Order: sequence, then C-alpha cells, then structure tokens
Amino acid sequence: VSQRPLVGRAAILGVGLVGGSLGLALRSRGLAREVVGLTRRAETLEAALALGAIDRGARSAAEAVKEADLVVLATPVRTAKEHLREMGGGLKSGALVTDVGSTKAEIVAAAQGLTPRAVFIGGHPIAGAEESGVKAARADLFEEATWVLTPTEECDPVALAHLEEVIRAVGARPVRMSAQLHDRLVAASSHGPHLAAGCLVRLARRLAEENPELLTLLGSGFRDATRIAAGDPAVWRDICLTNRDWILAFLGKLEEEMTSLKHLLARGEAAELELWLASARQARREM
Amino acid sequence: VSQRPLVGRAAILGVGLVGGSLGLALRSRGLAREVVGLTRRAETLEAALALGAIDRGARSAAEAVKEADLVVLATPVRTAKEHLREMGGGLKSGALVTDVGSTKAEIVAAAQGLTPRAVFIGGHPIAGAEESGVKAARADLFEEATWVLTPTEECDPVALAHLEEVIRAVGARPVRMSAQLHDRLVAASSHGPHLAAGCLVRLARRLAEENPELLTLLGSGFRDATRIAAGDPAVWRDICLTNRDWILAFLGKLEEEMTSLKHLLARGEAAELELWLASARQARREM
Repeated sequence: VSQRPLVGRAAILGVGLVGGSLGLALRSRGLAREVVGLTRRAETLEAALALGAIDRGARSAAEAVKEADLVVLATPVRTAKEHLREMGGGLKSGALVTDVGSTKAEIVAAAQGLTPRAVFIGGHPIAGAEESGVKAARADLFEEATWVLTPTEECDPVALAHLEEVIRAVGARPVRMSAQLHDRLVAASSHGPHLAAGCLVRLARRLAEENPELLTLLGSGFRDATRIAAGDPAVWRDICLTNRDWILAFLGKLEEEMTSLKHLLARGEAAELELWLASARQARREM
Repeated sequence: VSQRPLVGRAAILGVGLVGGSLGLALRSRGLAREVVGLTRRAETLEAALALGAIDRGARSAAEAVKEADLVVLATPVRTAKEHLREMGGGLKSGALVTDVGSTKAEIVAAAQGLTPRAVFIGGHPIAGAEESGVKAARADLFEEATWVLTPTEECDPVALAHLEEVIRAVGARPVRMSAQLHDRLVAASSHGPHLAAGCLVRLARRLAEENPELLTLLGSGFRDATRIAAGDPAVWRDICLTNRDWILAFLGKLEEEMTSLKHLLARGEAAELELWLASARQARREM
C-alpha cells in the first residue's frame, strides 16, 4: 500500500531489529521520501541496504540528521544520549526527534538541551522479538503494537499529532503517558520479568552443571517463562542503568511477594495455597 | 498406525488433559484392548467418551482397576494417593501401576503399601498445555516429550521395560531417575518458575488496579514469561504441598540470586551488568 509520504527525509540512528523494522515499514509503505541510516558496523550497513531497510548510510550522527525531518534514535539508550550530543546543531530547524528506547525519563531529560527549534518526543514501541539485529527486522513488527509517547507538557501539539500519524501509519497504536509513569510501569511489565527470568536460567544452569538430567526436564513452560532472558545484553545493560531506581523498587516488591508466598508454603494450608494460585491464574487470564 | 496391543485393559484414574491424552494415544494407536476411565464429574465422562479418550467409565477406583493390566493415576497428586488407598485389594495380581504427577517422592512412598504382587513405578511426562481438562486432550501430547520414570531399587525390571515400551509407543522418551532427584530438579525447572510467574502477575495486577495503562504495556515478553501462571490451581496446590521442601529451598536460592543482582544494579557498573545479562542469555540459549 503506497501512501503519500508523511515524512520527507527520515534518519534512523541505529539500524538493529527496531530501527531496521521501522526503516522497512516507512519504505515499504511509501511513508518517507528517503531513509538515511547510521550504523557503526559496515556489515550492518550492507545488510540494511540489502534488506531495503534504508536508502543510504551516513558516517556520523551529524551527517545522518542533516536535512532530516524525522530523526529516530534506535540504539541502546546510552548510545542514543551520545547521538543526541553529537547531532547537536546539525539538526534541521523544526526537525522532529524521537527514540524507541525502553526507558524514557533519562533520554527525555537529556534531550532538553536540544537545538531550540527541534522538538523531542520520547517513544517506546512495545514490540520486539527473540532475535536482535537488522537481519531479524520485519516491516510488520509494529502491527497492533502499543507505541508509547512521553511528550513533556511544553511539547508542540502539532508535532505530537504528526508523530502519532506516522506511528499509526506503520500499524501501531500510540498511547501517551508521562516518562515517569512509563518507567515505573515497564519495571513491572518488562524489566523485572526479564531479570527474574535471568535469575531462573542462571540457577538452572548452575544446577545442570552438577545434574545434566535437568536439561531433559525443561519443558515448554520453562522455555516460555525464560525466553526473554535471551535478549541483547547491551540493550538490557542500558535499560538497567537508566531505570535503576524503579527496577530496584520492583525487585524489592517481588522479594516481598516471594517471602509471603514462602510463609504460605511453609504453613501448608491447602485452601489458602489454592486461593493464591487461583488469583494468579485469574490475573494472568485477564492480561 | 495400528500396533499389536501392548496392554490388555488400561485404567486411567482422572481423565483431564494428561489422562485424556493418554487414553487417546492408547486407543488411536491400538495400544490397549480397552481403556476404562474414572472421572468425578458426569460431564467429563461424557466428553471423554465423545472424544474417544476412553471406552467406558467406572464409578470408583476399585471398579476401574478391576482386571486392569495397566493402571495410570492421572489426577492431582493428593487425589492419586486417595485412589491408591481406595483401589487396594481390587488390583489384579501382577498389575502395573504408574502415575503422571509432577512430584514423585510422596506418591512413590504412598505406593509402598500396595497389593504385594502389583508393581508401582512413578512417572512424570514433561508435557502439558496452557489449557486443562479433557477437552484440551490430544493424541500427540506426548510426542517427543521426556517421560520420567522413578523406579525404586527393588522394581521388577520386566515391568519397567514394559512400561518404557508403552511410553515409547505413545511417542515419548523414557528417562530414569530417583524420585528424590526428580523432585529436586523439577523445583528448578518447573515449580519455582511457576511460582515466580505467579508473583509477577499478582504484582502486575495490583499495579494495574491503580494504573490501568499498564495493561497496554504488556507485550509478548510478559505474556510468555507468565503463561505458566495460568495452570490449574488444584494441580499446582498439590504440587506445592507434595514438593514443599525442595520448592522452599529453590525459592531461597532465587531470593539469593535476586539479592546479588540488586547489589549489582545498585553498584551500577556497566561492564559487570552486561556480563550478568550475557551469562543469562548464554544459559538460556543452551537450554
């Protein structure tokens, strides 16, 4: 489906799974006249060009954003902060800058010193896949996905409406909330579960070193429950570092929940345990 | 594929997902001359007959096991222990009795007082599905699945070999280990992950009550990680009660792992965090 281009030149800084999928979505739907990509590695650039995720590559953030109407930061969060500094005055006046990172407060704060006439709106598409890298990119990655935007109170409403139009055009549903609330909620919906899965696989591996029979016992339950632990360590390192306080608070609550469950188990009252399990099942079914 | 019947009369006590699937597998492959089912509810009996999971129903454990060559306990563990008591002297001399429960030490111990000439071998197929109940039963549920057997040292090797033949005939891979080791390992591969998922969904639900936006943020990562929490509460209650010590020991280790992760987060050293995350990814990929 070809539409009128919503965007003139788009610059995507970081052409991995999410950046590459966005490039594919913009290009395959005719949503941008040109997509410029910034990647550190020549191999990624070649793959992105071969897949059709970008029209051409740039050698620096400043070069990539030149004359770009839409700039999308799509690297791990701390690299995105570096790119913000590097692009500096190279931004076109009136450019719309956004990102796709999993934490929002830090990047939104870092963007405050941006070129005065550019607009920054933090973003986070709730879309991912087990694999990472541009080779896993797909034009339909954002179909039906929630795409959070965290505009500040001073945000230009016209720019916000435009960004929401682009997001809907790639198939996603824009949802607005504050960066603070976003970071608090994703600690529970994503970061905490990721780290809990990491703990589970590390414990299982340690046990399997002594008892290799364990590996024959891992069923689809364990595999599903721990799939997220296979996420890109560089991306997750930055998530941990930029959402540390909310993650620590969440892990504290998780420990409390586990401690009260341990008491329940130790008491061994069947009806009470069944109620706990039924409430978990009910909660899961409603999600 | 029709084979010569390996079993004359099979009795399945508890015709839910696993018992029903076993009945379907035995009948559709011609592995048993007759399959008798015991269910508490008339509705389940009708569904099991309609699906072809059993040939006929019985009204009591004693009636079900009459003249049965193979008896399979397929209820939650504590009900299986009751059935063991009820069937008592009704067992055919030389009958092979097994179960499909997720914990083994308690049922193996309970079966020690069985009719002298019957043989009990504890079993645990590592197969399941999100749904429970006979309506979710499938003849291919055990294809490629590990099926643990926990024979005692005194176990008749002929009976054990026969049971393994039946297990292979329904498509699964029999694996032998002690009941003790089984219970210790499944606390890490299944019970602990289940309860951790339960904690995650209970926390998310509580947060969503104040912040319904949370529900829009739940992606496939959260859903996969918590799918197991939707398991049947009656089954999981009995698992918790019959594997309490290993589960408590595992939850203790999980808390230690989380505490050391919290320290790591609090220190905020990027390289150290990335190593932790990379080790989790590596462990997950090898599983």
